[in-house]
Amino acid sequence: MGEEVGFLGLGIMGKAMSMNLIRHGFKCDELVEHGASVAETPAAVVKKCKYTIAMLLSSTKVAFSSNMCSGKGYVDMSTVDSDTSSKISEAITSKGGCFLEAPVSGSKKPAEDGQLVILAAGEKKLFEEALPAFDVMGKKSFFLGQVGNGAKMKLVVNMIMGSMMNAFSEGLILADKSGLNTQTLLDVLDLGGIANPMFKMKGPTMIQKSYSPAFPLKHQQKDMRLALALGDENAVSMPVAAAANEAFKKARTMGLGDLDFSAVYEAVKFPENSS
Amino acid sequence: MGEEVGFLGLGIMGKAMSMNLIRHGFKCDELVEHGASVAETPAAVVKKCKYTIAMLLSSTKVAFSSNMCSGKGYVDMSTVDSDTSSKISEAITSKGGCFLEAPVSGSKKPAEDGQLVILAAGEKKLFEEALPAFDVMGKKSFFLGQVGNGAKMKLVVNMIMGSMMNAFSEGLILADKSGLNTQTLLDVLDLGGIANPMFKMKGPTMIQKSYSPAFPLKHQQKDMRLALALGDENAVSMPVAAAANEAFKKARTMGLGDLDFSAVYEAVKFPENSS
Amino acid sequence: MGEEVGFLGLGIMGKAMSMNLIRHGFKCDELVEHGASVAETPAAVVKKCKYTIAMLLSSTKVAFSSNMCSGKGYVDMSTVDSDTSSKISEAITSKGGCFLEAPVSGSKKPAEDGQLVILAAGEKKLFEEALPAFDVMGKKSFFLGQVGNGAKMKLVVNMIMGSMMNAFSEGLILADKSGLNTQTLLDVLDLGGIANPMFKMKGPTMIQKSYSPAFPLKHQQKDMRLALALGDENAVSMPVAAAANEAFKKARTMGLGDLDFSAVYEAVKFPENSS
Amino acid sequence: MGEEVGFLGLGIMGKAMSMNLIRHGFKCDELVEHGASVAETPAAVVKKCKYTIAMLLSSTKVAFSSNMCSGKGYVDMSTVDSDTSSKISEAITSKGGCFLEAPVSGSKKPAEDGQLVILAAGEKKLFEEALPAFDVMGKKSFFLGQVGNGAKMKLVVNMIMGSMMNAFSEGLILADKSGLNTQTLLDVLDLGGIANPMFKMKGPTMIQKSYSPAFPLKHQQKDMRLALALGDENAVSMPVAAAANEAFKKARTMGLGDLDFSAVYEAVKFPENSS
Repeated sequence: MGEEVGFLGLGIMGKAMSMNLIRHGFKCDELVEHGASVAETPAAVVKKCKYTIAMLLSSTKVAFSSNMCSGKGYVDMSTVDSDTSSKISEAITSKGGCFLEAPVSGSKKPAEDGQLVILAAGEKKLFEEALPAFDVMGKKSFFLGQVGNGAKMKLVVNMIMGSMMNAFSEGLILADKSGLNTQTLLDVLDLGGIANPMFKMKGPTMIQKSYSPAFPLKHQQKDMRLALALGDENAVSMPVAAAANEAFKKARTMGLGDLDFSAVYEAVKFPENSS
Repeated sequence: MGEEVGFLGLGIMGKAMSMNLIRHGFKCDELVEHGASVAETPAAVVKKCKYTIAMLLSSTKVAFSSNMCSGKGYVDMSTVDSDTSSKISEAITSKGGCFLEAPVSGSKKPAEDGQLVILAAGEKKLFEEALPAFDVMGKKSFFLGQVGNGAKMKLVVNMIMGSMMNAFSEGLILADKSGLNTQTLLDVLDLGGIANPMFKMKGPTMIQKSYSPAFPLKHQQKDMRLALALGDENAVSMPVAAAANEAFKKARTMGLGDLDFSAVYEAVKFPENSS
Repeated sequence: MGEEVGFLGLGIMGKAMSMNLIRHGFKCDELVEHGASVAETPAAVVKKCKYTIAMLLSSTKVAFSSNMCSGKGYVDMSTVDSDTSSKISEAITSKGGCFLEAPVSGSKKPAEDGQLVILAAGEKKLFEEALPAFDVMGKKSFFLGQVGNGAKMKLVVNMIMGSMMNAFSEGLILADKSGLNTQTLLDVLDLGGIANPMFKMKGPTMIQKSYSPAFPLKHQQKDMRLALALGDENAVSMPVAAAANEAFKKARTMGLGDLDFSAVYEAVKFPENSS
Repeated sequence: MGEEVGFLGLGIMGKAMSMNLIRHGFKCDELVEHGASVAETPAAVVKKCKYTIAMLLSSTKVAFSSNMCSGKGYVDMSTVDSDTSSKISEAITSKGGCFLEAPVSGSKKPAEDGQLVILAAGEKKLFEEALPAFDVMGKKSFFLGQVGNGAKMKLVVNMIMGSMMNAFSEGLILADKSGLNTQTLLDVLDLGGIANPMFKMKGPTMIQKSYSPAFPLKHQQKDMRLALALGDENAVSMPVAAAANEAFKKARTMGLGDLDFSAVYEAVKFPENSS
């Protein structure tokens, strides 16, 4: 992969990622914002460039209108479920193109810093060609096999994350109601065996009831739902994830879906002032 | 606190902690193993020394037989529930002595390395006198207020840990049953926002079904139960912790109580070979 | 509705229901078994008869091949989800026909005895025309409004039933492990405020580990999943149903999916002989 | 048991039960209200009568002050946990008396109608002597073996009841949020295999948000907690009961502890008007 990269999607993530490509010498002036096109239409980009990288909210339509043909590669770094990914893959390969799904773990900051974790699956050859680009966007790239495995891996990670956020919220409220200082709990946690960046970053804002959305709660709940559906398909019983999912749903009922997923803390601690 | 420290309890933790004291110049030759006395009886140690530090499995009896009097201090670093701690405190203070509960976060390795986290509560003055000793046994000491708060803080931390271990187990089995590689999941987790020492340390041994007990499952389950009881007392609803507790109970039903608490993975993934 | 009724589907339920129609003077000799046709093809039946009643495992294809036209009515008594029901409805009404979904509550015995509960939704006029037929097949018919509501009502009922079966199983095993006699528990339950036909009928067979499938566990679990999905759509948090669903999934993992749904008892009590 | 019966406790239940005894020719004029004595002190009653029946909120003190001696019998029909029951039993038998625990299933109405279910355990001989009295107070009496078994049986029944009440609440709110009529759901439930007196009696009042306490929520939650503790003791995993218990705790947090246990419906459906 070199000078001929088209980049679809200039949202928060796409912008940061494409900037890193440009900064490292990739010629990807064909940047297309989804909706309002900056340069040309997505179809035109695909036609012009050997490689197209997509970072879109809803990849389906764009991929289906692609001017794909033999020799071209399409790398979808958007987060989609494995069924959607399979449909896009079929659309691409039926036209002779190569397809790679490559959802990322990490949000705005890691995207800007080129520190994403890339969960790729699909055409191995395309993965290898894309590695130079992945290397400037991420700190580590995994090739996970057949299409759908990238999406699945991301669901598993987000499911663990969602359950952890609930456990963390329950701990904070238990500490508070038991007469302990929540900030001290954060300090203690940060020194022990379960210390992790999420507790460190989200804890202080949760205590301040600040839920500016880095990862919206409704998306976290959707991932819990999809992970549970994946478990259902494979007869995997996951009672802790199921309980966490119901808490996220309760938070949605409370109207917190557009806030950060850490706002589940509000659902866990409701109601605050009774006894 | 200086030369005159008696140390009760030479189990795995007590041995490591007292060795650190000696290594740093504390004169604590009055080391008493619980059950079989090394030097003298606990009561004799308390009589002889200004300060006594206890790291015992069941502190109650020892504390109640203490030759406490005004001017003496008793620092209980064992893990006990807050009710027991209060009883010991009353026994000590009724005789004029000073009491400090100081349970620790961390197991064998941090104890040997002097890297424990100390959760102290009780007599503030005694806390300050004990700080030089705490500083060589731990990396950080917290003073948490009234007796019982140390025990409560430890319960909150262990409850979060127990829920996380369940979320982690569910994720590993979901990955496995969905056709993903569990070692790759560990690698992905270790690069992201929920990376933590516990996942890093326990993950590889869990995959190998190795559950040598660093923290026995039955103790973890007891802490979940006590944390839920603390929540019950304060009307705190904790559905994720409750679900995790039931999984630990299932693991006990399976006869895994004496293995490491990470053996809950076996209960989550049972049965392995059916479909 | 009178002499001109075609009946599609002669499984356990369909046979019992159509026999009741015939016994009460309905002329419905156009009985078609799904798959192997008894008389004619479903399409021919629809063409010939003014009213067609379907009791099929998978209604979709049959309905879509229907020779529907203005003046004809199609009553689908099969259990389908509300989305499928809507699709069938559109297919029927787009051809000028009338559609009524009418899933039933009750299994083999009530079907034979004409004691089903009929949960109808769709075209009110067709409901009224079908009442004479409903009256001989069931003991009570409800008209629930727009298409989909019959399916939804059935899901709600089955969700409550599935959670109750789990509560019942947990109670039986708790009694047993606590040294109480499970048969005595059944006797006590049957005399109190929560006495119900399901406990009375299933309790004795569960104690005998007899799980001949009246309602297969995998179908119960599917209904739990669909009910939870309906809750997800409407932001309804249902932690008890979610926990029950995970137990049914565990039972599927154990290979019990084709047994009666009361076999979830085996998943709840596993493993039987350890401690 | 005949003319010489003393009756301690004239609360709602005790009054109704003793009235039935008197109506059927039992001479039990020694009626003692707990707290304010009607005739004499409990101790005097025990001294005077061969048999004493207790229906008290806190039996312990009364039992311990008893003038028990050989030849006398004490029948405790109050609801207590098995530990307390054992303590009372020891106090009675150490003085030569006979003890029977006999908690009842059923509340005010069954008590008035002589339709209680009596769960007796302890001294078999005393059970047989008490049968004539049990027969006028209840419709059925069970002898369950050693002291504690009556209390345990009651916990198991109430645990199932508490989980069912949650399942019922979740079903009502799912119906409501899905556009179904809740009264229709009650009608449908009452015609099917899970129809039971509790749904029939509580359903209409729950829809009207009327929670006049027949069985206070905080007592139901206490029974859930004790049943879960009994399960913990015997390594029985009960995830559905655990989830139900957390919902009752949430209801307590909302200040609903003194209302009827059906008020858990409010906790399940909160918040009502958001989306």
